[in-house]
Amino acid sequence: MPEDSIILDIEALEAAVESRNVEGFLKAAEELHYADLAAVFENLDDEERSFFTAHISIDRFPEILAELPDTLIEETLERFDAKAQQDILGQLLDDDRADILQDVSAEARQRYLALLQPEDMEATRSLMRYDEDTAGGRMTTQVARITSDMTVKQVLEVLRDDINSTESLARIYVVDDQGHLMGKVRLRHLTFSPWDTPITEIMQEVDITILATADQEEAAQMFSKYDMTVLPVVDEFNHLLGIITHDDVLEILEEESTEDIEKMSGIAGETSEETYLNTSIGTHFKRRFPWLFVLAVLAISSGYVMLRFEHVLSSIFLLALYLPMVVAAGGNTGGQAATMVIRAMSLGELEPGSTFKVILKELSLGLLLGLIMGASIAAITIFILPAFNPQLPEGISYTIFALAVSVSLAVQIAVSTLSGALLPIGARAIKLDPAVVAAPAITTLVDIFGMVIYFTAARTILGL
Amino acid sequence: MPEDSIILDIEALEAAVESRNVEGFLKAAEELHYADLAAVFENLDDEERSFFTAHISIDRFPEILAELPDTLIEETLERFDAKAQQDILGQLLDDDRADILQDVSAEARQRYLALLQPEDMEATRSLMRYDEDTAGGRMTTQVARITSDMTVKQVLEVLRDDINSTESLARIYVVDDQGHLMGKVRLRHLTFSPWDTPITEIMQEVDITILATADQEEAAQMFSKYDMTVLPVVDEFNHLLGIITHDDVLEILEEESTEDIEKMSGIAGETSEETYLNTSIGTHFKRRFPWLFVLAVLAISSGYVMLRFEHVLSSIFLLALYLPMVVAAGGNTGGQAATMVIRAMSLGELEPGSTFKVILKELSLGLLLGLIMGASIAAITIFILPAFNPQLPEGISYTIFALAVSVSLAVQIAVSTLSGALLPIGARAIKLDPAVVAAPAITTLVDIFGMVIYFTAARTILGL
Repeated sequence: MPEDSIILDIEALEAAVESRNVEGFLKAAEELHYADLAAVFENLDDEERSFFTAHISIDRFPEILAELPDTLIEETLERFDAKAQQDILGQLLDDDRADILQDVSAEARQRYLALLQPEDMEATRSLMRYDEDTAGGRMTTQVARITSDMTVKQVLEVLRDDINSTESLARIYVVDDQGHLMGKVRLRHLTFSPWDTPITEIMQEVDITILATADQEEAAQMFSKYDMTVLPVVDEFNHLLGIITHDDVLEILEEESTEDIEKMSGIAGETSEETYLNTSIGTHFKRRFPWLFVLAVLAISSGYVMLRFEHVLSSIFLLALYLPMVVAAGGNTGGQAATMVIRAMSLGELEPGSTFKVILKELSLGLLLGLIMGASIAAITIFILPAFNPQLPEGISYTIFALAVSVSLAVQIAVSTLSGALLPIGARAIKLDPAVVAAPAITTLVDIFGMVIYFTAARTILGL
Repeated sequence: MPEDSIILDIEALEAAVESRNVEGFLKAAEELHYADLAAVFENLDDEERSFFTAHISIDRFPEILAELPDTLIEETLERFDAKAQQDILGQLLDDDRADILQDVSAEARQRYLALLQPEDMEATRSLMRYDEDTAGGRMTTQVARITSDMTVKQVLEVLRDDINSTESLARIYVVDDQGHLMGKVRLRHLTFSPWDTPITEIMQEVDITILATADQEEAAQMFSKYDMTVLPVVDEFNHLLGIITHDDVLEILEEESTEDIEKMSGIAGETSEETYLNTSIGTHFKRRFPWLFVLAVLAISSGYVMLRFEHVLSSIFLLALYLPMVVAAGGNTGGQAATMVIRAMSLGELEPGSTFKVILKELSLGLLLGLIMGASIAAITIFILPAFNPQLPEGISYTIFALAVSVSLAVQIAVSTLSGALLPIGARAIKLDPAVVAAPAITTLVDIFGMVIYFTAARTILGL
């Protein structure tokens, strides 16, 4: 199997680095993909990394560098002398180069920029104008541009030089003399058309483009909706600025999904580019502590409600048996509703205009879930609870006790489901990321509701 | 802006369908991408759909059909007569056709298969042998195959016929006479090489392939790790069976992320292919109810613990003020830890061998978070609580009360963080999906721990 041979090569590389065996290192490195080399490099200690950078071919290092996490970029580049740095930076794809320069210190950025060829420097500077998480920040400017007055033969001659530039031949774009995007040509049509065919004859219309300032998530949504290979990036005057390719989109999707999932669990701050195990305890701590603290302080409100209802709980302490259930059911239903709504938003399914439909759907669901859950718990209470012979004050039957529990459970579920759907929508309306109000925030909020609903229902129905 | 023009076309299409304006419908449909046409179709009512299928060009419908959710496939195909069905099924890409036939009733499947050309029928049947969520179930067999004894000119002649088959020219694979995969050729190298060049001269090695029986998630991970455009699918003897393309991977990633996110919120069952709003209340209910019910019954254990500690709570009812906080902090930290571990597993970062490292990391984090949270809450209790003049029994100072609360909070956080990390690892070890034991399950479990820890600490430290 091919996968096994990769694992063997990785092990051989690691062994060669550990024993400082140059020949073995070069042989194993030759066999491996740059993504695997980057993964190995990330896991080496300081001296081993020095051995790695001292012996790896300079031609292979740019691709490896582009795969490393942000925090490793500068210290890794500094292992090379200025000449080698110039070679490495010069060989990087221009979108990777711009990303890398955005991740290093200001001092290093100036120094690295000064090493670049004038045209590379200009392209890099113009890419760095865009935020890293916009279409412009993701695009490469290494796109094949031709004009509509050419023939197939002329285009092939122009493109021949680009043959090793991996990002440029999937689609070839036709621009006018001011750089406006006019159309596209596919390599296969160039290949199979007679040499004297005018480009206008095989040129296709470009329906779908994206503004450089648009959010990267929008680019990813367009890619998956329209099954695209390459997405052209334009400015507001329809000048072709660059392209986003499918590998950029895979990165965007992974980043955005991780970000959503983490935010939904109350994990704050930027998603780490490093793997879970390589992220330091300090970073993990800084990302988990803030929400934890805020939620803990908020949870004291739930305790305060409980304190206020001391007399209800003291009258029938058996109420404690169902208290955690009623409270927790709110967190669970609220969390489910929030997840469905947040995911639908992330996939671009919910326009702001559909708020009313969402409310109607979640309200119906909340009532349905509340009714069925309430009825189930009532049945359990009436038929099973008496077998344990628990203490109920005189005048309060199992049935009326079950009614109090079930009504509060049903109300709590309905209220929580609706809250779970509304909170992300509200967050979006005030320009917050919907994901930050997911499960933990909603759970804490509906915990407070749950306490109030439970004790109020008990007091009213049981006449305490 | 191009996006605006798409929105205008969509609105024109919807208006034309509503007013049954055939000419307007055809004009607007002409302008739109099949993904947009499918989205519009999904939102139409029954009569409008009939109008749509009666007038849309049969050549455009296969791509639209492939975008529709599973549940709509059969009823939509049944709107056409057998001749049109034959045209539509014949024009589908073979991986789409296999997917579609797996989504219809057994009766319809036989009928549709009988309409196919013999070679299409054979290809479809062989694809249907693989589960939908394996590499084999995702691949297309429409891949360009050549042999190594050809020249560039011969290859170009063979491929000329494939020019409109969108899935086949990204990579051209070289096989021997038994169909074993030998190498690949890129279209750009064919285009720019002299016609008499032997294929062996421009053939490149294929390092990375995937077994047809491998999970689709593995295919997606390889794509994003190795920045691939096309991933060849082979059997255990290295016969080339098909390819997975980048648009398949986008679908896989979206499906898997949605599935993870939903499972992590206690939503059960298959992820719906329909959008949130188009999924029925019944389906939503069926996916949310099961976990909700199980967790509610489990939560009664928490209540039981509370019932058993009645005397502790009755002695100092002020303990109720912090009870929800201590319990909830467990759910929150446990949820965070579980999320980090589950996501790291999904991204392929955690090998089964790294369990010990994960335990060490989460244990340190749990202790650190517990200590800092405990100290913060102790400070709040000692300096702020007395201002509200709450009742504490004689002989119990604010300091010793704060100590009891803080110690239980710290222990609860440490225990919950570790549980949150261990549960998904344990689930994977017994071949369960780690995502199902996320937030809701962990919260319910650590709620029970929290009650026990809190009341035990209070009883011991406060001498109740």
